[in-house]
Amino acid sequence: MNFRAEIDVMPLKELLDPQGKAVEHSLDKLNFNDVKDVRVGKHITIKLAAANKDEAHAQVESACKKLLANPIMEGFKFELVQE
Amino acid sequence: MNFRAEIDVMPLKELLDPQGKAVEHSLDKLNFNDVKDVRVGKHITIKLAAANKDEAHAQVESACKKLLANPIMEGFKFELVQE
Repeated sequence: MNFRAEIDVMPLKELLDPQGKAVEHSLDKLNFNDVKDVRVGKHITIKLAAANKDEAHAQVESACKKLLANPIMEGFKFELVQE
Repeated sequence: MNFRAEIDVMPLKELLDPQGKAVEHSLDKLNFNDVKDVRVGKHITIKLAAANKDEAHAQVESACKKLLANPIMEGFKFELVQE
């Protein structure tokens, strides 16, 4: 079975996010004044083959923990879509 | 009304994505062999206030076009969640 994983890797809530602050500041300068709490992370799409959805879930979670997210600074969540 | 926008900014399909290729290569080295088509973009969350969902949608779309996405290299999509 083929799956597509849509993964979000975001800076942890407890941490400052300088890139998010920079975007927020720029948006304010562009007159988007009702905007706040901007946070910038990564979005990663991966296509993978697996015997079933549970196995695909385990593979993507392992990939996030081993490579895609830095657990000291980032959290991750993902969705699997069968293709 | 308060909304949270969950925005994905991804490199256009037609373009090479060197960061995605690097991640794909690293996953392969970590024995994730059933993985392909890795693409890496940005995930941005924004909180905003707007009179209604249509206005929030227009604001976020405008912010993407003016600042968050580079239309030459990137596409964007987003979801709005009322908070």
